[in-house]
Amino acid sequence: MSTVYSPFVNELKEKMEFEGAFLVKVIQLHMDKNGRPYLNLILMDRTGEIEARAWDGASKLAEEVKTQDILKVAGKINVYQGRRQIVVEAAAKVPAGAVQLDRFVPSTVYDVNRLHADMVALFSTLEDPFAKELALLTLNDPEAKPRILRAPAAKTVHHAYAGGLLEHSLSVCRVLDSLAGHYRRYYGKAVSRDLLLIGGLFHDIGKIYELAFERGTEYTMEGQLIGHHVLGCELVDRISARIPNFPEELKLHVKHMILAHHGKLEYGSPKLPHSLEALLVHMVDDLDSKVNTILGFVGADTQSGPWTATNRLFERPFLKPKVKPEFLGKSPGVEG
Amino acid sequence: MSTVYSPFVNELKEKMEFEGAFLVKVIQLHMDKNGRPYLNLILMDRTGEIEARAWDGASKLAEEVKTQDILKVAGKINVYQGRRQIVVEAAAKVPAGAVQLDRFVPSTVYDVNRLHADMVALFSTLEDPFAKELALLTLNDPEAKPRILRAPAAKTVHHAYAGGLLEHSLSVCRVLDSLAGHYRRYYGKAVSRDLLLIGGLFHDIGKIYELAFERGTEYTMEGQLIGHHVLGCELVDRISARIPNFPEELKLHVKHMILAHHGKLEYGSPKLPHSLEALLVHMVDDLDSKVNTILGFVGADTQSGPWTATNRLFERPFLKPKVKPEFLGKSPGVEG
Amino acid sequence: MSTVYSPFVNELKEKMEFEGAFLVKVIQLHMDKNGRPYLNLILMDRTGEIEARAWDGASKLAEEVKTQDILKVAGKINVYQGRRQIVVEAAAKVPAGAVQLDRFVPSTVYDVNRLHADMVALFSTLEDPFAKELALLTLNDPEAKPRILRAPAAKTVHHAYAGGLLEHSLSVCRVLDSLAGHYRRYYGKAVSRDLLLIGGLFHDIGKIYELAFERGTEYTMEGQLIGHHVLGCELVDRISARIPNFPEELKLHVKHMILAHHGKLEYGSPKLPHSLEALLVHMVDDLDSKVNTILGFVGADTQSGPWTATNRLFERPFLKPKVKPEFLGKSPGVEG
Amino acid sequence: MSTVYSPFVNELKEKMEFEGAFLVKVIQLHMDKNGRPYLNLILMDRTGEIEARAWDGASKLAEEVKTQDILKVAGKINVYQGRRQIVVEAAAKVPAGAVQLDRFVPSTVYDVNRLHADMVALFSTLEDPFAKELALLTLNDPEAKPRILRAPAAKTVHHAYAGGLLEHSLSVCRVLDSLAGHYRRYYGKAVSRDLLLIGGLFHDIGKIYELAFERGTEYTMEGQLIGHHVLGCELVDRISARIPNFPEELKLHVKHMILAHHGKLEYGSPKLPHSLEALLVHMVDDLDSKVNTILGFVGADTQSGPWTATNRLFERPFLKPKVKPEFLGKSPGVEG
Amino acid sequence: MSTVYSPFVNELKEKMEFEGAFLVKVIQLHMDKNGRPYLNLILMDRTGEIEARAWDGASKLAEEVKTQDILKVAGKINVYQGRRQIVVEAAAKVPAGAVQLDRFVPSTVYDVNRLHADMVALFSTLEDPFAKELALLTLNDPEAKPRILRAPAAKTVHHAYAGGLLEHSLSVCRVLDSLAGHYRRYYGKAVSRDLLLIGGLFHDIGKIYELAFERGTEYTMEGQLIGHHVLGCELVDRISARIPNFPEELKLHVKHMILAHHGKLEYGSPKLPHSLEALLVHMVDDLDSKVNTILGFVGADTQSGPWTATNRLFERPFLKPKVKPEFLGKSPGVEG
Amino acid sequence: MSTVYSPFVNELKEKMEFEGAFLVKVIQLHMDKNGRPYLNLILMDRTGEIEARAWDGASKLAEEVKTQDILKVAGKINVYQGRRQIVVEAAAKVPAGAVQLDRFVPSTVYDVNRLHADMVALFSTLEDPFAKELALLTLNDPEAKPRILRAPAAKTVHHAYAGGLLEHSLSVCRVLDSLAGHYRRYYGKAVSRDLLLIGGLFHDIGKIYELAFERGTEYTMEGQLIGHHVLGCELVDRISARIPNFPEELKLHVKHMILAHHGKLEYGSPKLPHSLEALLVHMVDDLDSKVNTILGFVGADTQSGPWTATNRLFERPFLKPKVKPEFLGKSPGVEG
Repeated sequence: MSTVYSPFVNELKEKMEFEGAFLVKVIQLHMDKNGRPYLNLILMDRTGEIEARAWDGASKLAEEVKTQDILKVAGKINVYQGRRQIVVEAAAKVPAGAVQLDRFVPSTVYDVNRLHADMVALFSTLEDPFAKELALLTLNDPEAKPRILRAPAAKTVHHAYAGGLLEHSLSVCRVLDSLAGHYRRYYGKAVSRDLLLIGGLFHDIGKIYELAFERGTEYTMEGQLIGHHVLGCELVDRISARIPNFPEELKLHVKHMILAHHGKLEYGSPKLPHSLEALLVHMVDDLDSKVNTILGFVGADTQSGPWTATNRLFERPFLKPKVKPEFLGKSPGVEG
Repeated sequence: MSTVYSPFVNELKEKMEFEGAFLVKVIQLHMDKNGRPYLNLILMDRTGEIEARAWDGASKLAEEVKTQDILKVAGKINVYQGRRQIVVEAAAKVPAGAVQLDRFVPSTVYDVNRLHADMVALFSTLEDPFAKELALLTLNDPEAKPRILRAPAAKTVHHAYAGGLLEHSLSVCRVLDSLAGHYRRYYGKAVSRDLLLIGGLFHDIGKIYELAFERGTEYTMEGQLIGHHVLGCELVDRISARIPNFPEELKLHVKHMILAHHGKLEYGSPKLPHSLEALLVHMVDDLDSKVNTILGFVGADTQSGPWTATNRLFERPFLKPKVKPEFLGKSPGVEG
Repeated sequence: MSTVYSPFVNELKEKMEFEGAFLVKVIQLHMDKNGRPYLNLILMDRTGEIEARAWDGASKLAEEVKTQDILKVAGKINVYQGRRQIVVEAAAKVPAGAVQLDRFVPSTVYDVNRLHADMVALFSTLEDPFAKELALLTLNDPEAKPRILRAPAAKTVHHAYAGGLLEHSLSVCRVLDSLAGHYRRYYGKAVSRDLLLIGGLFHDIGKIYELAFERGTEYTMEGQLIGHHVLGCELVDRISARIPNFPEELKLHVKHMILAHHGKLEYGSPKLPHSLEALLVHMVDDLDSKVNTILGFVGADTQSGPWTATNRLFERPFLKPKVKPEFLGKSPGVEG
Repeated sequence: MSTVYSPFVNELKEKMEFEGAFLVKVIQLHMDKNGRPYLNLILMDRTGEIEARAWDGASKLAEEVKTQDILKVAGKINVYQGRRQIVVEAAAKVPAGAVQLDRFVPSTVYDVNRLHADMVALFSTLEDPFAKELALLTLNDPEAKPRILRAPAAKTVHHAYAGGLLEHSLSVCRVLDSLAGHYRRYYGKAVSRDLLLIGGLFHDIGKIYELAFERGTEYTMEGQLIGHHVLGCELVDRISARIPNFPEELKLHVKHMILAHHGKLEYGSPKLPHSLEALLVHMVDDLDSKVNTILGFVGADTQSGPWTATNRLFERPFLKPKVKPEFLGKSPGVEG
Repeated sequence: MSTVYSPFVNELKEKMEFEGAFLVKVIQLHMDKNGRPYLNLILMDRTGEIEARAWDGASKLAEEVKTQDILKVAGKINVYQGRRQIVVEAAAKVPAGAVQLDRFVPSTVYDVNRLHADMVALFSTLEDPFAKELALLTLNDPEAKPRILRAPAAKTVHHAYAGGLLEHSLSVCRVLDSLAGHYRRYYGKAVSRDLLLIGGLFHDIGKIYELAFERGTEYTMEGQLIGHHVLGCELVDRISARIPNFPEELKLHVKHMILAHHGKLEYGSPKLPHSLEALLVHMVDDLDSKVNTILGFVGADTQSGPWTATNRLFERPFLKPKVKPEFLGKSPGVEG
Repeated sequence: MSTVYSPFVNELKEKMEFEGAFLVKVIQLHMDKNGRPYLNLILMDRTGEIEARAWDGASKLAEEVKTQDILKVAGKINVYQGRRQIVVEAAAKVPAGAVQLDRFVPSTVYDVNRLHADMVALFSTLEDPFAKELALLTLNDPEAKPRILRAPAAKTVHHAYAGGLLEHSLSVCRVLDSLAGHYRRYYGKAVSRDLLLIGGLFHDIGKIYELAFERGTEYTMEGQLIGHHVLGCELVDRISARIPNFPEELKLHVKHMILAHHGKLEYGSPKLPHSLEALLVHMVDDLDSKVNTILGFVGADTQSGPWTATNRLFERPFLKPKVKPEFLGKSPGVEG
């Protein structure tokens, strides 16, 4: 069983025969009508998920293979009631370390190190030295940085892929930066660019502890019991404690922007936004996640005609744009 | 009774004696305990409102003076339970035409002709020739233009002053323009700058017919019965009918963005936003009005300490910014 | 393949062998376990829908037959888990024009020309000449009349069949007429019969443009983006423009009744009812659609015992009446 | 102190001097700045309420006069901040029995005995002998009948005057009768006229025990703790127990229509309507009370221009009808 | 076909062969692809439900066996897509009376006669003689007692098993007794122990008539149309009528506590709690049913790891306790 | 000016002349019609608040006296429109330290040291050594203890007096202890007494930092921006950090119970209760505050008849208990 070309899940078509490697999301052993054991599997890579059934060696595989293992598979594609399914002809577990996990988990189209560098550059321009140091210490914290580079922004819905948190946070910061410039021309320095940017960086940062995201995304124990609002505040407490004379009022305001960023109590914020900056961080977070959700949905829609299927989150179909959304993946901060 | 200096309402202080002219908002004749007739008035100019009482010549004034007349007043200021009141010593009606109405109605700090010119310049950059012509014909329509220059954006709440609609619409368009640039770097031309800008211009344009705003702001009959969503659509129908071969689909999309710009049915939109552009127009409209409302409220707050009084619309107090909001009044599109 | 008797969908019973013609609602080509292609279909006529599977000639049929075509079928009925299914033995497309579409789309039990004549007679009794002319011009408008004769009142739920809009509107008008008589005896001419009837005729008229209803009912582009409230107002604008000196206030009131007829903002009305007549039009529209929905549901229920199954719209079962609902189909305006 | 003409509350104008008799709604003794005792009163008759102040003999009156007594008053009318007030010059309590209470409590414009006779005539036409007997026994029950003749339909809002319950119930029954005729022409005998009429008669009947209405309307102890839904069911149990072989199912359905007549749980109905008749009784009850509320409000409105003031219940102003509502007071069942 | 050991539903494992007896919950005759008739069944006993399929003698069984019959079955267990299914090899109906129904309906782990005796003992301690007699007469009423011993507390959700109503009511009474003691130490005799206990006993008692529970639980006609709130009040009326001089006010308060025990109108209470006791009865009812629901759900959960599956009623997963819930079944009133 | 007897606010009656000392809640200088300056004050002590007016020396007092100062006053009581008012004859500021603040702020009827000792005794019985140490370290923490002894449980509504937090928390713990005993007899050790008690102690503890309560109760900056949920978690982090090997999971569960104790997101909890203990802590917190609120309200009600006035929080009147609520003030843990 040798692989010349290993297709991705989104490339598998009806009747295609192929060999490939996938992450095991679900594995169950059943008995068919004739008493033969077979495996029901859900396999995934970064392009999607697919069901699979295996008869040969099912019992042995069931003992060897567990959820989150990598499985090498030879098979062909059947379509049943519009759903594709792999009929497995041969399968074997791939030893840990023998593969790059990147292939199996969806991730941002951007280079996360470039996103991180852009973020550091942006926060180097803050005026308030304490706000600047809080941001840079956090971005470069040896414990936090690897998580910041890899965390998704959510389990599902928006930016739900590796690096999605950083992609989303940078986009939010850039929109806030632009709003700061815009409204300072109207209302003067009552609009604080420093607070807006700090709010953009920290609003979702608790998600690096709320979610476990090595192979698929799950809530951690502290994520489920405490949540990313409070986990973000705890991070601010920890990092700011390292900065001598860090102003109490700045710390409270940053924590307030984190706690208030869902905008309403019923969306999980224990505090309503009590400052213009807290409100804008909430609104831009909301706007950026909706843009990403809608364009991802519209881009993936396969329905013919001018309308997409009904989006379950928005409870409506969308009118398709004339030009299909792309995910450009060049650093969006740079023109051209 | 000659006026050396005529103070504005917001300049009237306890015990001050003065002469000045004001717009009559309310006028009522009463009898005091001793059977003497007196007038209860609410007077206003563009800086605010104040109560007034007049005994001398009350009956005669009651016959001559009506709501929305201009009244010249000599008097002094009393404060009762924290509320200022004019004790009128002499008063006389000012003939129509003898005064500039601008003094009596609050208005934008910007030069509305400059705002209009900025708007025209912005829409001259559209790519789609039909969208561009629809915008420019509307902005320069001889019937609509005077109303566009003068309409407030609302009866109360946000940009509730002469020229407020134009100030608000231009600000919304600029933010949308900036978002178009931002998200096109992420997702390509699926995000339509032309549609976003057209949506920004037309979303509230029905307000030029929904509101009557010569001397104070009231709903018109069509405003109350039909509302600015539908009145805006009718304007689009009228203007686009003058443009040969105007594409039906573009007209539907513009009308859709108008109808959907309140974002939810329960806020008066008969349609939910069904395109990314309709959603963004709604979100930026919401954001821009909230920024204006909050900074106006924070700027006017007189409470001591770090918190404002409770804002009734937002049902919360706001943390005051370190720098008090100004209303700069230079064209915000120009740096410096 | 010759048809002696062609049964309707609601006449197909387990094991029955038959020949018949149906409208194709869904058609999909699949491959079975043995690699044989087969068709999954949903077929319909005016009495209901049924699934079908075809093996013989599946690939060829898949190329020739499309959604909304008419298909002649020979087959027999299987029941699987309580659901009937046609096992197709032979099938052929019927040429366009060779069949009466009436057989395939559910429609009102009434003669629509009779309903139309009744409507015209009713509106000939209006007192206000402008209101009367608006109604009669609309009912007889060469572009609108064919649509008025054929439109359903909704895609699903109430009066969701050809002619349903006219049946519903006439019933609403008659109830409003009766209420006008009743309440004028209590409160005098403050209750306007003319306005009530005009409201009854026009409240849903935008549906003739909101829905496409030739073969099944779908939303049109303007239906989805603009909706029948605003489309109805546009019709009133168009027709009233043909009537010299049509009073502005009457036009506003008619458009207001259309916009307000869903009664609440969250049900899609951009305006609350601001007159007694607008409120009554809303309430009677609601009442008439509920009566039709419930009696249709109760009449179709097959559950044994005194209760129907749970109705999904009303979220409750209904107590069955002692007498089963009939759909009489004689002109309900005439006794006997 | 002799009265030539005794004006009603709604006839009292500024500066008018008069003598008259009123029901005491509120009476409180206070001390003024100079230590003189005075009385604050609210006085009423069937046309409205008015404040009053009395200095002479205040202490003595305070001892003699209680809430719900009748007070003879000589005085004149002052207006303060737009509110009329009686300045009492002399006052004396009127002995119980010396006056007709009708003068002091608002009541229906109809002859309640005529309304009752119309109701009896209507229910004599029922087909089902048990339903007919239940209705007629109730209408003529020696304990219930005097309460039925006098009860208001509510403490405030709709038909809130003596005889209002009977006026409202008869109007509801007539509308239901008309709907029964209408929909039986469409759907046959599945629509039960008997049930609709019985529902119309009994839906609010518990109010004869929920409210105490001799001199003003208050909740009784059982009204407050149990409510008119359950009190109505108890009445049905009591009366039906006197009818041999009364069918259990009919009794359950009548009680169900009573319990469900507010239409939704959150409006105080412990059951949703589970039959067409229960739903129609709810809808017509709602419709009839709204018509009465709106026309009463519009008729009493004093604001100039085409709009009424904002109605607090409906949270909106109403467009005034061209003809002002009258309360005709002839038996509405009879033409001419 | 003889049974050595008859397993319960919750003991049936994949591939197991067995004989046993079950209650028939659903029975349907179908035809397979080859035209062979077979039965689809849902069988149950007090430990759960399971699907079954039978081919041999299917037609004959379909004629003989009905819902709620007891069926003796020989078969084996298949697992398909994680769901167990009985493949029936032989089956025969068991004559009525030949079996103890207890085996087939889930029931409380307590001895219901012991629960009843505890209840009687508790109410013998009431101070108010009328309250005490009302309770004891009800508990020992020959018509009500057998229903009280057997009724479940609900069709699904909490204490949904035979005797569940009595188990729940006693637990509620005990918690209320403990709260009475607690708060009387704080606030004195303003907290009435008698009322609290009476409220605990009667709040749900209408369920003995709302539900039919011989073989499975269904709503009765009066349950569906009237509901247990009103049915409970009717019981109080009937029993209290037997007690001479029963105080009207006590009767109203007991009925009020019954009507108000769901706490909010939208949960089906036609009255809000208007006394401390009515509120506490509601809150403890709510608390006791939630404890039972959650511990039953947690105890039955089979998911690995620290979290249960998502509970549909609470819309969340629960953190599992360190010790798994038991259902002890000894009389909880007795220590040790 | 010497004081023989100094009455409390709730002892001041119409026309009474007195001398006494009060806390200044509001102080404002105004000018009367004749140009004389006078002071408007709101004065308070622990029994209530009262308005006051002072003419003599008003300007001088206005300079010397500030909010939260203690003022010695000689005056007499006037009643105007049912409201008492002090007419001040002489007044002087009392030097800080010259008075016991206890007289001026309402406080619990219990000895707070006794409440604290009871709390310590209760938590000494915990089984889990870490939970026990966390509780005892917190109760005896030198920084926290003085705040725990003095904090109210809320700014208004329930237990809104000094020591109210401790009184409330102890009562909640006792009810939870009793529920633990009760339900462990039903369901075994799945119900954790240790967790319930820890939840009862810590659920509101963040209020010692959320509120400032030296002279009246106000929100602190961290209270307003962060809130007592998160402030409580931070306290748990600080104290548990002092305990070696404190289990992470226990810490998470305690913080979870704090965050979830408002029960719903819309009530300010960022997490729903995800364990039985978290839910019970929420429910008992709710129950105990409602009992205190209602009995305080009923005890203070002055309306005649069986009903209280309408309670604004509960939006209803309450039926008065036969025995008026007392606030006993002996340690409620001890019988007799």
